[in-house]
Amino acid sequence: MSALNVIENVDAETIVEVTPTNIKDGEPGLTHIKTAFKTGKHVVTTNKGPLALALPALTELADYNQVYLRFSGTVGGGTPVLDAGKRCLTGDRILSIRGILNGTTNYILTQMDEEHVTFQEALKNAQKLGYAEADPTLDVDGIDTASKLVIMANWIMNKRVTLKNVNIQGIRNFTLEALNKAAEKNNTIKLIGFVNENLKVAPTEISRQNPLCVRGVLNAVTFVSEFAGEQTIIGRGAGGMETASAILRDLLDIKQKLSTKLIT
Amino acid sequence: MSALNVIENVDAETIVEVTPTNIKDGEPGLTHIKTAFKTGKHVVTTNKGPLALALPALTELADYNQVYLRFSGTVGGGTPVLDAGKRCLTGDRILSIRGILNGTTNYILTQMDEEHVTFQEALKNAQKLGYAEADPTLDVDGIDTASKLVIMANWIMNKRVTLKNVNIQGIRNFTLEALNKAAEKNNTIKLIGFVNENLKVAPTEISRQNPLCVRGVLNAVTFVSEFAGEQTIIGRGAGGMETASAILRDLLDIKQKLSTKLIT
Repeated sequence: MSALNVIENVDAETIVEVTPTNIKDGEPGLTHIKTAFKTGKHVVTTNKGPLALALPALTELADYNQVYLRFSGTVGGGTPVLDAGKRCLTGDRILSIRGILNGTTNYILTQMDEEHVTFQEALKNAQKLGYAEADPTLDVDGIDTASKLVIMANWIMNKRVTLKNVNIQGIRNFTLEALNKAAEKNNTIKLIGFVNENLKVAPTEISRQNPLCVRGVLNAVTFVSEFAGEQTIIGRGAGGMETASAILRDLLDIKQKLSTKLIT
Repeated sequence: MSALNVIENVDAETIVEVTPTNIKDGEPGLTHIKTAFKTGKHVVTTNKGPLALALPALTELADYNQVYLRFSGTVGGGTPVLDAGKRCLTGDRILSIRGILNGTTNYILTQMDEEHVTFQEALKNAQKLGYAEADPTLDVDGIDTASKLVIMANWIMNKRVTLKNVNIQGIRNFTLEALNKAAEKNNTIKLIGFVNENLKVAPTEISRQNPLCVRGVLNAVTFVSEFAGEQTIIGRGAGGMETASAILRDLLDIKQKLSTKLIT
């Protein structure tokens, strides 16, 4: 039985979709999710591809079929970035978001900054340690960061955007010289994603004293809100156990939503 | 009409209690809250006194009277520390908490560290800028931090503790010498509150590269969870607008809880 057959025919309330990210056409995740919706099943996914390419359409399709779509594990790994932004600031308004959303590039930039190695050397170290894949395109070209921005913009700020709305600049051609210049001002350079009127990913100079300025593979996101000021949440952005904990959170959230719904 | 008369006799669903913190006997806040409960009213408070002294008893009294008690503004100001710990990590288990919970002492320690001034000088600066009160006892002796620990331990970790369960050491006798020693190892010293098996407040040496190590009047809390790893949340710990946003969050939370309850 194919995965699609299972999704169509098995008597399940919720499908957990964890196929790898494909940023070209979102498959097979996109079809898995759509099929689940059409057969009345909720979806929890950790796959950024379908969301980055089609989140506004998927949200509509879920609403139309009266099912839930949850994806906590796609941003921040086990760190509850999406929940912190959406739920913990109820009654407030998030004006903008900025974040270090990719552990691989943050590790590379931290290595370059602290060990004064070139981009190529830092990338090799990251690959040796398993922080970067053999083909590092999605990470170093900023596409992973951009995908997470799209997910946050939709979920937290109700923007109907996809990957093609993001202005993306990665770190492939990033030099030690630029870092050294920033260091003279006690600053450093990080690959930062921004959501405000527009969505942008670019290597950006920031103060080392900014709470957003985390080292190594850590992720960090700052929410700028209208009343509660600036809030930063920091944690590991990846890891099997961490992502599994995000899936569990989503399943519990759907279960709770259903128990309220059944009562009405 | 006295405040107590108002609480007893006005036809309100919820009382917002914002009298100043009194750490000796919790009054008048404690009586306000109890009176509201006994007359069937929910309470939103920003007053740490009654909570630090009697949170386990107040929680029981609220349950008995089938009303809600909310106090988001007591820890972290507008930063949703309590919500982040309790709700965003559903399905996980918080093993321990550590935090910089008092902006005044953090400002003083940051000044001593960066400007190499004595405790007395830094305190004077803090008073001049309005960061410290004329009588700085609650802050510099660690009682404010301890009160927030008690609130987090009860709310997030279901511990039934009060202020007398906290081992407290403040920064009143803290010297530049200790800071200089820490600086030699690229560390610094912060007034940190811990919740694990026990509750403790003490000046503690930490790495400057620890996400918890924030400057100035910022607050920061790290949750150590079983599956999702370590999560740090950073924000301003005080401010009128910020605290008002926390009150609004609590009111919306109670409203939402009631709408679910009415249905059942």
